Amino acid sequence: MPDKVRIVVDAMGGDYAPAEPVRGAIEALQKSDRIEVIFTGEEERIRQVLADLSYPKDRVRIVPATQIIETAEPPVKAIQSKKDSSLVKGLQLVHKGEADAFVSSGSTGAVLVGGQAIVKKIRGVMRAPLAPLIPTNKGASLLIDCGASVDARAAHLVQFAVIGSIYMKEVQGIRNPRVGLVNIGAEEEKGNALCKEAFPLLQACREINFVGNVEARDIPKGAADVYVTEAFVGNVILKLYEGVGSVLLSTVKQAIMSSPKSKIGGLLIKSELKKALADFDPHAHGGAPLLGLRGLVVKTHGSSRALEFCNTLLECVQFHDQDVNGKIQAYLSKTEES
Amino acid sequence: MPDKVRIVVDAMGGDYAPAEPVRGAIEALQKSDRIEVIFTGEEERIRQVLADLSYPKDRVRIVPATQIIETAEPPVKAIQSKKDSSLVKGLQLVHKGEADAFVSSGSTGAVLVGGQAIVKKIRGVMRAPLAPLIPTNKGASLLIDCGASVDARAAHLVQFAVIGSIYMKEVQGIRNPRVGLVNIGAEEEKGNALCKEAFPLLQACREINFVGNVEARDIPKGAADVYVTEAFVGNVILKLYEGVGSVLLSTVKQAIMSSPKSKIGGLLIKSELKKALADFDPHAHGGAPLLGLRGLVVKTHGSSRALEFCNTLLECVQFHDQDVNGKIQAYLSKTEES
Repeated sequence: MPDKVRIVVDAMGGDYAPAEPVRGAIEALQKSDRIEVIFTGEEERIRQVLADLSYPKDRVRIVPATQIIETAEPPVKAIQSKKDSSLVKGLQLVHKGEADAFVSSGSTGAVLVGGQAIVKKIRGVMRAPLAPLIPTNKGASLLIDCGASVDARAAHLVQFAVIGSIYMKEVQGIRNPRVGLVNIGAEEEKGNALCKEAFPLLQACREINFVGNVEARDIPKGAADVYVTEAFVGNVILKLYEGVGSVLLSTVKQAIMSSPKSKIGGLLIKSELKKALADFDPHAHGGAPLLGLRGLVVKTHGSSRALEFCNTLLECVQFHDQDVNGKIQAYLSKTEES
Repeated sequence: MPDKVRIVVDAMGGDYAPAEPVRGAIEALQKSDRIEVIFTGEEERIRQVLADLSYPKDRVRIVPATQIIETAEPPVKAIQSKKDSSLVKGLQLVHKGEADAFVSSGSTGAVLVGGQAIVKKIRGVMRAPLAPLIPTNKGASLLIDCGASVDARAAHLVQFAVIGSIYMKEVQGIRNPRVGLVNIGAEEEKGNALCKEAFPLLQACREINFVGNVEARDIPKGAADVYVTEAFVGNVILKLYEGVGSVLLSTVKQAIMSSPKSKIGGLLIKSELKKALADFDPHAHGGAPLLGLRGLVVKTHGSSRALEFCNTLLECVQFHDQDVNGKIQAYLSKTEES
């Protein structure tokens, strides 16, 4: 019998805590008998949500934590001072080997800082990249890195490319994922100093399927499965995606609501539109993994509902079963030797 | 009587040359009796387009040029080797003081390189930024820099902020334009090394109305009138804007065309939708100026039609009348003294 996957769920993180993380985790439990859930947070409030749900009691436990790290708190200070927070306690369980993965909708900064400081990086990993999936015309692609470590060097980008490729292959099931370097022109000699240095290194890397530079206009068209970039640019891409999408869709909605005639038109296209735009819903995918750590840390959206938690937990099983960290480690020891 | 504004139009640049640049320029002539147009390019082909138009002959002349710089050509080499191109000849007219402005839909790289090499920078300008207008919920904002000079330093960003503010005030009529620094968090201490260094400098600059950091998700919401950023990030923003917009709108269109019912719905919302999205049309605004040069150089979209050329020429008059370059110069000599 395959082993269990022990997943800590931060029950206090996100806009709808504790109800949605708890419900989502229980849904995942029901879908996969491989999962064991450990909730961290205020025991009484977690029990209240659980009271309404039916679930296998032997696969759920609570590790009480009395503090909550708020989104506005400076991450480093919060991690250091709030030792009894649901976030710090959860990460410690992974660090001590009592859990395989940690999932949280809490403060992105605290998850990033805490993940690196408490769970710690795999030996040889230079930086732990945050790698969300972004919607494209051809399915979801991985944007790596959107994390807190800005001003990356070329060697970091190569590691991101390899780690991102392993993730897309093993967890998302993309065979031979295409890796693109986000750049401001398609030709090899284009770009800033970082891109010019990274391009030949990516080209020489045998572990990846490098397809060259990708201009930002081609990102939503699915020009690659793994978009490699430095964290500052990655963060700009991620947030602009969200911003342009929401402004455009609200403009379309306003246009539909602006006259009686267009309101009727809106009713007639509603179901088709909803279906077509579903793929562009960031919540349709699981959370963003912070890769390269000794264990798995996943950041879900602050506004995550049960569905996103459930999908994320199922992806944690996949991550564990495909031994993603083992494969990252194998690559690193190979490059260390050479 | 106010003086004439002499504008060179590259008749051979862009997807619809020479017809659309020539028609657009003639439209501008008819709207403003201040404009004189000089077309550069193949005389015979320009004359063919002019033959169908009525216009004041004394305000139009042609400077023949036999070569054309193609979009795919490496810019530096093209500028050096194609001395008889419509682009090089046009820029030389500005350099020699025979024209006030140059407008082209040709190769962006060649316009950027040629503008700096031939027209040359105003003394004290460290870099000449390319500054397109981008659509937002609250009207158009300036994105500065999207040019070819990547890896800018903090002092460059401060100049961009001042130059961009002068442009938005004098040419676009925005009183006290809000300047935002594109960053990955709202707090002062956020960002990469460049942003951390630039933030206090922008804050200390008295010539601008600095509103602090702006996250990429707030760019389409019109969080500032002038978005200051380094060229690599600016280019990513500009192109991702275009990419996300076109993929989303084509998704909406596909949804509308997917069933007979939704097609009828589409007809009912068509006029309202068109109106609402008009502001998001990049061609609704004039071209992107390359600022800080001794003269004005404007890059219009490769796919520009007559309307965009016409608008661009009218903006050139505004640029000239408001003495934008004089104001940039005044700022520079003030900072030189201090």
